[in-house]
This record gives sequence, C-alpha cells and structure tokens, in this order.
Amino acid sequence: MKYCSHCGAGVELCIPEGDTLPRFVCKQCHTIHYLNPKVVTGCIPVWEDKVLLCRRAIEPRYGLWTLPAGFMENGETSMAGAAREALEEAHAVVDDMVLYGLFNLPHIDQIYMMFRGNLRHGHAAPGMESLEVNLFYEQEIPWQELAFPVVAESLRLFFSDRRKGSYAVHYADVMRGADNEVTITRY
Amino acid sequence: MKYCSHCGAGVELCIPEGDTLPRFVCKQCHTIHYLNPKVVTGCIPVWEDKVLLCRRAIEPRYGLWTLPAGFMENGETSMAGAAREALEEAHAVVDDMVLYGLFNLPHIDQIYMMFRGNLRHGHAAPGMESLEVNLFYEQEIPWQELAFPVVAESLRLFFSDRRKGSYAVHYADVMRGADNEVTITRY
Repeated sequence: MKYCSHCGAGVELCIPEGDTLPRFVCKQCHTIHYLNPKVVTGCIPVWEDKVLLCRRAIEPRYGLWTLPAGFMENGETSMAGAAREALEEAHAVVDDMVLYGLFNLPHIDQIYMMFRGNLRHGHAAPGMESLEVNLFYEQEIPWQELAFPVVAESLRLFFSDRRKGSYAVHYADVMRGADNEVTITRY
Repeated sequence: MKYCSHCGAGVELCIPEGDTLPRFVCKQCHTIHYLNPKVVTGCIPVWEDKVLLCRRAIEPRYGLWTLPAGFMENGETSMAGAAREALEEAHAVVDDMVLYGLFNLPHIDQIYMMFRGNLRHGHAAPGMESLEVNLFYEQEIPWQELAFPVVAESLRLFFSDRRKGSYAVHYADVMRGADNEVTITRY
C-alpha cells in the first residue's frame, strides 16, 4: 500500500495513538488503513465412499489437485461461500453441509473454513478454474499431487474420522516456515 | 474506495474478465482491489461458575457489556488473536482455549470466531477499551445491556451447553435486517 484509497494522497507506516501495531495512515486525510486476514471457504464433497477433487487450471499450483475452495465474499456466509465455490469450480451441488474444520495459516494471513457435505447425484464437471474433476476412493487420493497442505490435512482428518465412525469439528494451525517445512498443530 | 492504493490513480467499479462480481479496478495500473469479510475473534473466559464480561469504553455500543473480542490481525492465529484481545481489554489470561462457535454476520461483512477457556486466577482488570470488567453468574448476566446479538447468542449457547454437561462447536448466522430485527439461524 502506497496511496490512500479514500483521498489518493500518500500513506506512511506508523503506530496510531492508542494502537500497538504499525498501520498505513494517510498523510492528508489521516485515515487508518487496516490490513486483515482473508477467509478461504471450501468443502469436502462426498459421494458414496468417494470424495470430489478438482485439478487446478490456475496458478498457484496449476495442475495439482484440491478441494473446491476460494475467498469468501462480502455479503455471504462462509457456508454459502463454500457452496458457491463448489458450484463454480466443479458444477457441484453440495447438500447438508456442516462445519468440519478451521485452519489458521498465519504465514500467509489466511484462515480456512472447511465444511463437509453430500455431492448431489454424484455429479460434477470442471468449472473455469479446473482442468478436470474426479471422485476418489481413499486409496486413490493423489497425496503427492495435492495443491496445498491444508487440503491434505482436511482429507487426512476426514478419512481418519470416517474410519472411527464419528466426525469432530477440527481446529489446527497449518504453517509453512522459511525452510518450506510444513508444521501442523492440532488442538 | 476511490483511489488505487498501489499507484494513486482513480478506480472504477466493473466486473473483471472471468469474474462474476463488480470489483474496484484501477483505471491506470489495472490492479483489482478485492474487498473481503473481516474476522472478529474473541472468547468466553470462565472462572468457577462465572463468566467475564467487559463494559465498552468505545463506540459502537459505548457503555454496554461484551465478551472480549476484536479484529484478527495479519500474522496471528484466531486463537492467539482471542487471547490478545482478552489481555488488551481485560488484562485477562485465558488458558486451555478451545473453539466454541463460528458466527456469520453477512450484513456487516464479518465472521466471528468464539473460543472458550479458563480465566487464570479469576483475575481481570479494565484495559484501555473497557470502562469496567466483571464476573457474572448466569442469573446476573445483563441480557438487556449486551452490546451485540452475537455476544448474547454465544452466552445463551454456553449456559445451555453447561446445563447439558457437554459443549458442542456451534455454527450459526446472526443477521440484522433493514427493520433492525435480529434473526439467528443455527445449523
């Protein structure tokens, strides 16, 4: 951020009075511009014993497999956002969604909300952002070709819960250090 | 938003190619500025049979009672943010936090994450943003003087779960219509 989005003047980084962190503050109109984490909302669409994955047609991670997910929009709920992403990325209608996991990714200022639900009629087809979509049995999941650690973690938890026959709501930190190593802390 | 925060030129509202919603797009450098919901993170600090509330020293809802909560910051996890807010607003250290509720407030583009935990030593004192802090038994909760519907909903769920002797992770929409009427949808 270099310019004030309200008046167009330059901004400077300083700690406003009564605050504890540096913020971008307009030199002219003194508006404080806060930068906050973004919410990514997605779901695990389930059909019989299989789970729906999409192969990404966009960067980052072009060509790798992911769960349908994307940035939550203003004016929608997280569950509505997850349903919208499934429709956009996989022409998939997901019924009976419930909250499944909340994952912090503080190294990239994101927080993931994952739901699980039933893929209506088992039907899916690639949307604009997907090269292909496919239903996978657990033993078919392309673990080495998953796009993001949070997708792998969501799937690991899901299959583990399914074996136990009971689904929890999960909360974890999924972090990637400077050395590119992924650390997962489950609570 | 009137000006591009990258180059200072004017922005216009239009639907970018491949998108479905209008966004602020810079007329000069063509940067697309997405606006996304903000996360508010907070907690229910519990001490023996009592819950900690803070009386707000700031607008909105100056003088009304609330749970410690505030905007999640970049670089932190939602739980770390809830702990930070309890410390800032009530000099309270909250141990053993667990996720308790996720509440959508789409009418104001916010999503609340509520945790519950144990107030260490039962100690609290008003921070900069609080007029006073106090521990309340259920029958003492100032229901008519609570700052926000999401705070009332969190407390209702908490006392209900406590009576049952088992705590779920809750997910709900807490909406306020144009007529100012609050609608709560629990899933």
